[in-house]
Amino acid sequence: MKTDTREHILACGGRIIHHKGFTATGLQEILKAADVPKGSFYFYFKSKEAFGLALVDHYQSLFAVQLRPILTDATRPPLQRLARFFLWFRDYFAQEGYIKGCPIGNLTQELGDTNPMFREKLNTALENLIRGVAKQLRQAQDRGELRRDLSPEEMSRFIISAWQGALIRMKAAAGSEPLDNFQTIVFEVLLA
Amino acid sequence: MKTDTREHILACGGRIIHHKGFTATGLQEILKAADVPKGSFYFYFKSKEAFGLALVDHYQSLFAVQLRPILTDATRPPLQRLARFFLWFRDYFAQEGYIKGCPIGNLTQELGDTNPMFREKLNTALENLIRGVAKQLRQAQDRGELRRDLSPEEMSRFIISAWQGALIRMKAAAGSEPLDNFQTIVFEVLLA
Repeated sequence: MKTDTREHILACGGRIIHHKGFTATGLQEILKAADVPKGSFYFYFKSKEAFGLALVDHYQSLFAVQLRPILTDATRPPLQRLARFFLWFRDYFAQEGYIKGCPIGNLTQELGDTNPMFREKLNTALENLIRGVAKQLRQAQDRGELRRDLSPEEMSRFIISAWQGALIRMKAAAGSEPLDNFQTIVFEVLLA
Repeated sequence: MKTDTREHILACGGRIIHHKGFTATGLQEILKAADVPKGSFYFYFKSKEAFGLALVDHYQSLFAVQLRPILTDATRPPLQRLARFFLWFRDYFAQEGYIKGCPIGNLTQELGDTNPMFREKLNTALENLIRGVAKQLRQAQDRGELRRDLSPEEMSRFIISAWQGALIRMKAAAGSEPLDNFQTIVFEVLLA
């Protein structure tokens, strides 16, 4: 029950912050969305900052649960798994109307410069993502399905940059072009 | 004189917003940084939103003045001009301590979803940037210095995504790795 309330506050507050940003979201909005009194919020999170930091873990777990089946699907080759990984997000954003972007990228942009605790936690989250992508690239090389003169880690770092930037451009374009462009250039040019 | 004061408020306010974000920056901070009374601010800008929109133009002009000599340098081939364009920003961020990121990208991330006027203005700014990069790629193709099976516009869109995302990752990494990675993969793999 306790865990449920905590998760409920994270899910409801996270939805608002994902859309409006951390600073622009007031505690009252989070309480109202979660329909909990202030005392309940402070029972689980000692401050709005602590809530924001917990949100980074929350999103990482959420994505891991959703995406692990795609990334470990042994019936498909690694590059196809990777393409499906990004297409899963593309479908998600299509449903949302091409808004919100990556909650990890958003918080990095908003708080990375000004809050060292956020910066470190978000850097770890991005490094985890980079490691996950690099693993697929390494497997593709081992199977002879990707040129071997590219460093999987370097390529993965670049792909995650391109992905984060595509999500920024998506907000400006208010459409699928940046995500389609990402998918085409990464899988038909860069890794082809 | 009037233009000077307006530019002065944009420069001073812009510096704070570039670092802290639009929502997190109060009008009082802008007035204090520019050392002008509230009446002076409202003489030039009818609201904080109008100030933010003017800031997009301000940054575009600023970058155009700084970067036009690099992008029109006829003594260098187009891909080298393009590499120097991004290296100019790399040097800028090195001086700043790898913080702040792209003012256009930041505002897009922060306000693109929630403010249609910002979204449209920022989309135009990003499209201008894309056009500028595509122009160099097209010239490189015309000179036989870039493979012709790539669409300059599509590649340019991807490169600007990768650049915006590298600047996001820069804030998390608090170092040059994302910018170095961008430079290496774009110019030694993607356009090589």
